[in-house]
Amino acid sequence: MSSYGPQVEVAIARVRADVARLHSELVRNNLVVWTGGNVSGRVPGADLFVIKPSGVEYPDLAPENMILCDLDGTVIPGTPGSERSPSSDTAAHAYVYRNMPEVGGVVHTHSTYATAWAARGEAIPCVITAMADEFGGEIPIGPFAIIGDDSIGRGIVQTLTGHRSRAVLMQNHGPFTIGKDARDAVKAAVMVEDVARTVHLARQAGEVIPIPQDAIDSLFDRYQNVYGQAPQGVIQ
Amino acid sequence: MSSYGPQVEVAIARVRADVARLHSELVRNNLVVWTGGNVSGRVPGADLFVIKPSGVEYPDLAPENMILCDLDGTVIPGTPGSERSPSSDTAAHAYVYRNMPEVGGVVHTHSTYATAWAARGEAIPCVITAMADEFGGEIPIGPFAIIGDDSIGRGIVQTLTGHRSRAVLMQNHGPFTIGKDARDAVKAAVMVEDVARTVHLARQAGEVIPIPQDAIDSLFDRYQNVYGQAPQGVIQ
Amino acid sequence: MSSYGPQVEVAIARVRADVARLHSELVRNNLVVWTGGNVSGRVPGADLFVIKPSGVEYPDLAPENMILCDLDGTVIPGTPGSERSPSSDTAAHAYVYRNMPEVGGVVHTHSTYATAWAARGEAIPCVITAMADEFGGEIPIGPFAIIGDDSIGRGIVQTLTGHRSRAVLMQNHGPFTIGKDARDAVKAAVMVEDVARTVHLARQAGEVIPIPQDAIDSLFDRYQNVYGQAPQGVIQ
Amino acid sequence: MSSYGPQVEVAIARVRADVARLHSELVRNNLVVWTGGNVSGRVPGADLFVIKPSGVEYPDLAPENMILCDLDGTVIPGTPGSERSPSSDTAAHAYVYRNMPEVGGVVHTHSTYATAWAARGEAIPCVITAMADEFGGEIPIGPFAIIGDDSIGRGIVQTLTGHRSRAVLMQNHGPFTIGKDARDAVKAAVMVEDVARTVHLARQAGEVIPIPQDAIDSLFDRYQNVYGQAPQGVIQ
Repeated sequence: MSSYGPQVEVAIARVRADVARLHSELVRNNLVVWTGGNVSGRVPGADLFVIKPSGVEYPDLAPENMILCDLDGTVIPGTPGSERSPSSDTAAHAYVYRNMPEVGGVVHTHSTYATAWAARGEAIPCVITAMADEFGGEIPIGPFAIIGDDSIGRGIVQTLTGHRSRAVLMQNHGPFTIGKDARDAVKAAVMVEDVARTVHLARQAGEVIPIPQDAIDSLFDRYQNVYGQAPQGVIQ
Repeated sequence: MSSYGPQVEVAIARVRADVARLHSELVRNNLVVWTGGNVSGRVPGADLFVIKPSGVEYPDLAPENMILCDLDGTVIPGTPGSERSPSSDTAAHAYVYRNMPEVGGVVHTHSTYATAWAARGEAIPCVITAMADEFGGEIPIGPFAIIGDDSIGRGIVQTLTGHRSRAVLMQNHGPFTIGKDARDAVKAAVMVEDVARTVHLARQAGEVIPIPQDAIDSLFDRYQNVYGQAPQGVIQ
Repeated sequence: MSSYGPQVEVAIARVRADVARLHSELVRNNLVVWTGGNVSGRVPGADLFVIKPSGVEYPDLAPENMILCDLDGTVIPGTPGSERSPSSDTAAHAYVYRNMPEVGGVVHTHSTYATAWAARGEAIPCVITAMADEFGGEIPIGPFAIIGDDSIGRGIVQTLTGHRSRAVLMQNHGPFTIGKDARDAVKAAVMVEDVARTVHLARQAGEVIPIPQDAIDSLFDRYQNVYGQAPQGVIQ
Repeated sequence: MSSYGPQVEVAIARVRADVARLHSELVRNNLVVWTGGNVSGRVPGADLFVIKPSGVEYPDLAPENMILCDLDGTVIPGTPGSERSPSSDTAAHAYVYRNMPEVGGVVHTHSTYATAWAARGEAIPCVITAMADEFGGEIPIGPFAIIGDDSIGRGIVQTLTGHRSRAVLMQNHGPFTIGKDARDAVKAAVMVEDVARTVHLARQAGEVIPIPQDAIDSLFDRYQNVYGQAPQGVIQ
């Protein structure tokens, strides 16, 4: 069994608890069905992250069956949960953590409306103020990439690097979101589905009114710096 | 710590409890995601109102962390919850209370269908009897206005003053509703989403049949004066 | 206080309990918001029915605040709940009970998809087998009629008399359903929204395939006579 | 009362418990309303299967009122639940078990979006990777067939034999799914509704991007052999 010193072990325990609990937010917000979707969180102060096991049902997720991986996505042997396989999307999460050091959490779902935009390969235009607040503009499309090598992770990183959005819609696949920690990435996953649905419905019935770029900039700037009980900052 | 005399303190306590509890109706009716949406209530007999703190999760809302403000939207120092920031929409709520003395409650959400109409800047036409009952005609669009000064509050007041509707769809933003108290404003928020959804779906499949103006007038009049266990009256 | 003899009093108590409990099915099936919607049940062996009070919230509905009425819709004085006003749709329910002796339950909602068809004044065509089973063909539109006299009740009775459907979509208003008892009418209210939604979505994406009339007849006949644990029979 | 030896009796008890419990997944995933929908499971090591009774409400379903049938769909007399009628779809389930020995579970629902595709007689094209994973290509349409003889069962078997998909949309009727056991068939029922909804919404707003056949093949192959905690294999 590995040991990382008391401070890191405490951090691991906290991230295990957070990641396990945050999966219930995916269920509560109707972002996932069956065993789909996954949340991971980086362990602060270590080259490690915690992710959901593969194909396990939501009610069975608990801190001790979350899986600890290094930044190559290799399961750390002898740690709790290591007898199971990690999420089949682990390689994509690992790629993001290796290449975006400011990212502390990654979430993937096949949430309905976001995936519908992804199936058309169409970015979501910024036509509601909540979207300007949260994403600072459109939500971009990432490349078509299938599981099995680094192409999903690379597509996420290339699309989101230097972009205000914490969400990318991988073509024909679904949304991946990033955040300063796992909770922030889950929030982005909740919000991307919400705006995907609202803008879908808005356009269905006629033309939407664009928001001027300077208003988008001002809303994004204010939200990142003022909203909530403490400044959040932009993670990328 | 402020003291307003026993009667006002009792009123404050009651409004704190109502406002905290009414936020759960926003969740139960699927009008909000994450920490979005806010309810406020005027304190009867005082130039005060109670509003939700900013960026706090719904399960954590309780009477003692609701925030007491004066009608300029300034937090009353030393009162329970005053260590937190009030909702980022506090200035808009305050503007409404200052300028519409008959209003006792204000609600803001980004509920899906209502916001979809707002993104097109399109008023909801009155084609179902429940809408005639509740809103007395179309639900109007308010101007595009961004957070940071009085422009949201002013847009709400200018649109709703002299209008039968207790709901306005602020363009590209979402619905604000008013009521004789916080509960009445929450009811309006529930009903505006309900009619926004029904009329959206109705129009999607063909032409809707308009309701004659005299039938709308008669339904609105009857509902405001007869429905329920006691007359409600029109608040504006 | 009225007394109807022990047998009728037992029947009243049972209908009170059924009607109170069945309102929770309206909530569970997302057919109503706020205090909207109402269920009533005829008291077997008496010229009486039980209906929901007006404007009371769903969690507060209990057998003892259901309201007992005669077939003119007049509240029976001195009975439990009689201090409250009955549902504002009581006159329509009463008209149905007076004119359709085979009807034992009536339900009214503004359920979303059914009301959307009603806003266009368009009958729902029978293109799914579950609809042939349950309604034996299309679900018809009733006339535009506003509250205040017998016109809603008359519209329901004229449309459903001699029709296989237990549901009518009152134009610009919403569905009314009837049944052999209150539970059967609630089932029809659940099913009419289900088929309204499915057929709406089916047509949205292209042309639906009609079901041949002889297949509709055969499905309806079989379902009314074979399905379930005991024969149900057609109520009208 | 029949007796099949201790091993088969244990298997029967396990399938009864599974089938009863799995019906709650249909409710939780919003695949059914009222008493609609049914799950069955083959008893391993015997020519028997367990199915839901007809027209019984979901909260009343328990292991002891599930019904044991032989592969002709005849209820085994004297066994628990045998006083009730089995699901009206029992003949279709039985036909599948007789003709597809590799099938261990069958599910039927009228889930909204899947039934909407069925009403148009339109197969769901494979445009999202989750669908390639789970179904290996399009979800096919089965023939129009009404209840009363073997035509539903025959339509299911003819459509799914040699097909990668575990789901068929019976025209004007709704989805039937198969699986290696009842749980696997329920998973397919959940997933078919999920992809039916997502692809419906995707196409509503414009053209969807097809997934190349070799990518579909590679995703399907990987998912069947790698995903989850143990290999699953393709059942047909």
